[in-house]
Amino acid sequence: MLEVTPEVQHLIDLALAEDQVFNDATTSALIRPNVWGVGTFHAKAHGILAGLDVALAVFHRVEPSVETEALMQDGHGLEPGSTIARVAGKASTILRGERTALNILQRMSGIATETARYVKAVEGYRVKIVDTRKTAPGLRYLDKHAVRVGGGHNHRMNLADGVLIKDNHIELLRHRGMTLPGILEQAREMAPHTLKIEVEVTNLAELEEVLEGGAHIIMLDNMSLEDMSKAVEMVGGRALVEASGGITLENVAAVAETGVDLISVGALTHSVTALDISLDIAA
Amino acid sequence: MLEVTPEVQHLIDLALAEDQVFNDATTSALIRPNVWGVGTFHAKAHGILAGLDVALAVFHRVEPSVETEALMQDGHGLEPGSTIARVAGKASTILRGERTALNILQRMSGIATETARYVKAVEGYRVKIVDTRKTAPGLRYLDKHAVRVGGGHNHRMNLADGVLIKDNHIELLRHRGMTLPGILEQAREMAPHTLKIEVEVTNLAELEEVLEGGAHIIMLDNMSLEDMSKAVEMVGGRALVEASGGITLENVAAVAETGVDLISVGALTHSVTALDISLDIAA
Amino acid sequence: MLEVTPEVQHLIDLALAEDQVFNDATTSALIRPNVWGVGTFHAKAHGILAGLDVALAVFHRVEPSVETEALMQDGHGLEPGSTIARVAGKASTILRGERTALNILQRMSGIATETARYVKAVEGYRVKIVDTRKTAPGLRYLDKHAVRVGGGHNHRMNLADGVLIKDNHIELLRHRGMTLPGILEQAREMAPHTLKIEVEVTNLAELEEVLEGGAHIIMLDNMSLEDMSKAVEMVGGRALVEASGGITLENVAAVAETGVDLISVGALTHSVTALDISLDIAA
Amino acid sequence: MLEVTPEVQHLIDLALAEDQVFNDATTSALIRPNVWGVGTFHAKAHGILAGLDVALAVFHRVEPSVETEALMQDGHGLEPGSTIARVAGKASTILRGERTALNILQRMSGIATETARYVKAVEGYRVKIVDTRKTAPGLRYLDKHAVRVGGGHNHRMNLADGVLIKDNHIELLRHRGMTLPGILEQAREMAPHTLKIEVEVTNLAELEEVLEGGAHIIMLDNMSLEDMSKAVEMVGGRALVEASGGITLENVAAVAETGVDLISVGALTHSVTALDISLDIAA
Amino acid sequence: MLEVTPEVQHLIDLALAEDQVFNDATTSALIRPNVWGVGTFHAKAHGILAGLDVALAVFHRVEPSVETEALMQDGHGLEPGSTIARVAGKASTILRGERTALNILQRMSGIATETARYVKAVEGYRVKIVDTRKTAPGLRYLDKHAVRVGGGHNHRMNLADGVLIKDNHIELLRHRGMTLPGILEQAREMAPHTLKIEVEVTNLAELEEVLEGGAHIIMLDNMSLEDMSKAVEMVGGRALVEASGGITLENVAAVAETGVDLISVGALTHSVTALDISLDIAA
Amino acid sequence: MLEVTPEVQHLIDLALAEDQVFNDATTSALIRPNVWGVGTFHAKAHGILAGLDVALAVFHRVEPSVETEALMQDGHGLEPGSTIARVAGKASTILRGERTALNILQRMSGIATETARYVKAVEGYRVKIVDTRKTAPGLRYLDKHAVRVGGGHNHRMNLADGVLIKDNHIELLRHRGMTLPGILEQAREMAPHTLKIEVEVTNLAELEEVLEGGAHIIMLDNMSLEDMSKAVEMVGGRALVEASGGITLENVAAVAETGVDLISVGALTHSVTALDISLDIAA
Repeated sequence: MLEVTPEVQHLIDLALAEDQVFNDATTSALIRPNVWGVGTFHAKAHGILAGLDVALAVFHRVEPSVETEALMQDGHGLEPGSTIARVAGKASTILRGERTALNILQRMSGIATETARYVKAVEGYRVKIVDTRKTAPGLRYLDKHAVRVGGGHNHRMNLADGVLIKDNHIELLRHRGMTLPGILEQAREMAPHTLKIEVEVTNLAELEEVLEGGAHIIMLDNMSLEDMSKAVEMVGGRALVEASGGITLENVAAVAETGVDLISVGALTHSVTALDISLDIAA
Repeated sequence: MLEVTPEVQHLIDLALAEDQVFNDATTSALIRPNVWGVGTFHAKAHGILAGLDVALAVFHRVEPSVETEALMQDGHGLEPGSTIARVAGKASTILRGERTALNILQRMSGIATETARYVKAVEGYRVKIVDTRKTAPGLRYLDKHAVRVGGGHNHRMNLADGVLIKDNHIELLRHRGMTLPGILEQAREMAPHTLKIEVEVTNLAELEEVLEGGAHIIMLDNMSLEDMSKAVEMVGGRALVEASGGITLENVAAVAETGVDLISVGALTHSVTALDISLDIAA
Repeated sequence: MLEVTPEVQHLIDLALAEDQVFNDATTSALIRPNVWGVGTFHAKAHGILAGLDVALAVFHRVEPSVETEALMQDGHGLEPGSTIARVAGKASTILRGERTALNILQRMSGIATETARYVKAVEGYRVKIVDTRKTAPGLRYLDKHAVRVGGGHNHRMNLADGVLIKDNHIELLRHRGMTLPGILEQAREMAPHTLKIEVEVTNLAELEEVLEGGAHIIMLDNMSLEDMSKAVEMVGGRALVEASGGITLENVAAVAETGVDLISVGALTHSVTALDISLDIAA
Repeated sequence: MLEVTPEVQHLIDLALAEDQVFNDATTSALIRPNVWGVGTFHAKAHGILAGLDVALAVFHRVEPSVETEALMQDGHGLEPGSTIARVAGKASTILRGERTALNILQRMSGIATETARYVKAVEGYRVKIVDTRKTAPGLRYLDKHAVRVGGGHNHRMNLADGVLIKDNHIELLRHRGMTLPGILEQAREMAPHTLKIEVEVTNLAELEEVLEGGAHIIMLDNMSLEDMSKAVEMVGGRALVEASGGITLENVAAVAETGVDLISVGALTHSVTALDISLDIAA
Repeated sequence: MLEVTPEVQHLIDLALAEDQVFNDATTSALIRPNVWGVGTFHAKAHGILAGLDVALAVFHRVEPSVETEALMQDGHGLEPGSTIARVAGKASTILRGERTALNILQRMSGIATETARYVKAVEGYRVKIVDTRKTAPGLRYLDKHAVRVGGGHNHRMNLADGVLIKDNHIELLRHRGMTLPGILEQAREMAPHTLKIEVEVTNLAELEEVLEGGAHIIMLDNMSLEDMSKAVEMVGGRALVEASGGITLENVAAVAETGVDLISVGALTHSVTALDISLDIAA
Repeated sequence: MLEVTPEVQHLIDLALAEDQVFNDATTSALIRPNVWGVGTFHAKAHGILAGLDVALAVFHRVEPSVETEALMQDGHGLEPGSTIARVAGKASTILRGERTALNILQRMSGIATETARYVKAVEGYRVKIVDTRKTAPGLRYLDKHAVRVGGGHNHRMNLADGVLIKDNHIELLRHRGMTLPGILEQAREMAPHTLKIEVEVTNLAELEEVLEGGAHIIMLDNMSLEDMSKAVEMVGGRALVEASGGITLENVAAVAETGVDLISVGALTHSVTALDISLDIAA
């Protein structure tokens, strides 16, 4: 689900406010309120569309009477020249909302496009490409929606909806004399019973300890392909196995080949390349 | 100036809320409130630091009693292993704030680092590298600060602090029978007298019209290097000249060579590569 | 963890605003700003203290210079006459904050006290008493904290941190031709992989289907004691078993006797009896 | 008046946010957006309906296109099986809003139902049953509306709309040498002239002082029935008389018999028993 | 009481945001963060100081480390050259906050000064000068505080803390066949029992009806001096009498002479003349 | 442009909240929800209408189903008796919104009316009357719109959309050894290139320095008419010239006669006289 929820609406408001759209010096000086226009979104590159509902909602917030028409839905493939959507109303409304709408659409489509590349690269394997919490501040919900549009799956949305015991937790607890099985036992006892427990391991020795302790998901952090294959074998279906760290478009298929269940890719959201989309306005 | 203004504080709150840091299932289950820790930020790549004040403010918002120490300031050069800052306090506080702080620091340092590359590429020219309004929604202020840290300059912060007559405005107004000089005259009469007037032109014929009309700044949109050189000559110092469109690290020096005053680069903020920075926590 | 997070602070602000404490007609008319006072919280009944940090934070919000001293911590037993905490500062500050602080403290202590009764009633069994999402609007976080203070455990905090397939979901999906095992399979494929999957069943036939489908947690809804015992036996440790519906202080031990892992009690938070606590102010 | 004012809307938003309805893991995994459903609210107990407008507004906030139909109005009597309202639209919308809507409806109907019991218990007397400021934090407005629906009246909404001089005020002022008549004189001089002045007394001696001082309303705090009767006689219509403290369904008629004008009952809002109401969803 | 309550703090934030103080182009360009300064507030006219706490709080919000020193308190008399307060800190902080602080201080001092003129004009009469709800949107609380500083009293703060039956109510109710005594009876029965009931009358015939009906306060709207004198006599102390409409500094003493208890003056807050105060900054 | 932007809507909400319109004791007691009424706005004085859209939006916020009809637009001339607009709907809605709507309409129309007087006084000169940042806190946007309605022009909206180097900046920088030309050079180098640079001068010697330094706009602060005439001559069209300080309706024509381009008048917004407008409600 991505609809324009109150939280998304709040983000739109924030973006419109920081752009001072209701105080647009150029439009106010030049474009009378009675000038009507039609804006058309065109793709200027190959990719996957994402974020269209949010982008169109921007114009409705600037002026409720604007009319918008989506010519495709999120997930649709784009190529240079594809016509995506139309906005009709006061030309001043379209001009005010243009930059904010494009900033949203270009980022989200960029994420979906790159995700689709990873998904395609592992086609034929039963692995899932998943994202991380490495999103732009305030954009978690939009960034993660775009990953889903691109065919990826979401890892934790936030700190509340999954237990993930990472190197820093383990370091602190080992320092106090706890072992990995002991840590897992405490997690099972204390964490909400509705959440699975995931642990990060960096080598096969740790993996053995974790298997003994009984985790639901095991994250292999920056392991070699060889070790990942061994790890999958050692786990033998008793837990989900997630590969993490240093994943690129070049090596992702080889990682999938090891038999892991999930491959998480931080770059999907922390290093986004905007997809080139433009808005042309005609009278 | 970048300090933690109320608007930045609001963004931190938004980021902490979307990450549900006060409902962190892992930390609550495993790390007692009386466990103390020290977190250290290290660079893992070459680059320029940006956003440290904001990143450290994240921890203060999670728990006001935390102690933070900046070992360098925004603008400092980073290399793999550089120690950036320390955070001391409840280990649970550091764990809760970690991801949010890193997300901010990595994006802002990524922007500053890339900006510095452009600035270095035009060293020796009197041109300024400037950003655009193509920023992530809600992050305008942080993104633009990072550009300044990297040695770039800011173009308009928003629609209110500059008049920029673009293709879409011109198209609409020509349709109603106005000429470029006429448009410029109306802008001078109607726009706030404290703002300069910038116009986008796509060829030398339009440039001539605009010079006649009297713009303060002229944006050359996607022109060839040859035409840009001619344009600079034609303007002859009567206006600032800005090159825009299709600028890359490869061609930016050649663009500077044409003699333009400003080169605007959308990719600085619309296509950010996060700089690799980590936080290690010790007991 | 319950500290005065930004969300809790927001709730305090809301409560102070709805009580118009900064426009207190009585205090403004009668109590000069230079009158100092000491307020003492006393219990007037037997119970368990909960919410003290939040209650004291109310006074700090009214006037930051007030001094508060907690004489006990959340979870401490109360009896009539127990002295809980002191507040010293301008008498007007204490008078303005009194009602808001007491409303929080009495509700939260009421919840903790009742929870503790349930926990005591099942002493000796390895069952957990858990709450539900049947909390007062806006008070989810405080209500659930009070349950933990009373020795209970939390079920889902919200719709995001657990999958719970209830009668209404099943009804809708059966109508579209799906079976319980099919529903479970779809949930496993589509829901975030970090979440366990819980299903509600109302009889042993459904239970059998669900076991076949492979749920992590099974909620027995309003079953007889006899059926619950049989269900526990049928599950045989393959999933967590939760008893739900019609639980009272009178029958909770008998339910525990059936061997279920979890007993959820909506009344803990939907039907709260405030614990009697007063604030006496002396000059 | 209870309509969905901006303040009530804000509370709905708060409740939807804390339940993360737009991130509902179960519904997103199982119920496609094109599945339509009809939800029906049924009573499962005897009582009085309150809060229906607010409960239905919850669904409109989740999805504006939902259709809701109230089959009765606030104040209507309920019995097991009564059909209260219908909600038609996307099944996912109904599932997301269900818990929040029920939490509001069950609490408010619980308050109205209990209030109606008190009102009925004093039938035939010209006394009014009134509430107090002992409401759940953030729910003042809803709680007090439910009291009115049940036939009760509201005491002060907040500290601004009435002067009420209580034991703590009197203690502080006596300490500075003031007498009750002196306190009343100061209140008349200093408090807004649009507000009546109420004073709390605990015995007949204080009552005499207060009558001399000229209060508009006199609160008899925890007095015996005998003393209350004497108090009513002493006042002789010169002020409104309010009984307060220790009122129960068992003794309220006897208190009314003393001739007081108002009986305030804190338990109406501080110790609410939710009324059992359910929502059944059909395809 | 006027302290910097959360509501006032919110207003300061709003004012700082609308002035974009954290994006001050002039100060950022010219004044380095390490330049320190001292700002001094001077009066440039005769008047009464009001709003100083709020004005100084502006600077603390811009930068918490700033130091402010109030050399006088609200209510102090000013003359040209009076030194009011000092602000010491970063010069950039003082420059950013200057305009917002002065806008608050000049308006509030203007209100206090004009109120004091009315109060002085009726010196010797036992009448109170009161304000109205004719305040600038969002500034109710500050405007009304300034009236108190000037020696005036406050009428209703808002629609909740007083019953005031005006011409428009009466017109609507007469149309439905009600008489003034009937209206008053309904108000007594239905309105909160803590509020007094005020009625507006425009002539002596209406006054007679209202006296019969039993109002607590009677507003004489735009009556002649002669009729007001008669009205005071007719009321004979059975209610408070308020003169309203067309009051000026020229006629206010004559109105007081008629013996009314209260004179309300809308112009105190709807037509404010700012008091001239300046801020000089030295290095 | 002035439409009811999110920021204006927020201000309306703030005003309705401070007036507690949803808790209106009088209307709730007397006017049933099924009583319908029509309110008519009438002018009671000569002037210029401003703010009507905002005033009517107030009623829509109280109750979305209300119907409003504007009989004239902002900028229309008013005389006693002019009918401005009608509001039809529940009488209770009109009564609740009345005061808030009038407070907005009367202030904004007051500003427009006074501005129009200044504009008329300089008719025939090519000078512009401009406002200042001396607006009521939170009302910047509305106040400045009203100035435009009255025929005036806006100076800077806030600190971000113009560079204005004032006495305090100059004092601080001179103290550090800078000259006016040096200050101007730094401003040109450091300030956003889209903004013009304005400098305040107090005498002709400073003017000479500033002309040398190359400002875009020069503010003559409190100069004599004779010096202003000389200044205009000295500038000779190389910069815009603004007269500021001590401007009144009496001297504004003489100031215009000196040939300045702009005359700024703080009193337009810091000392507003409300225009008398009333709302009459009929059944």
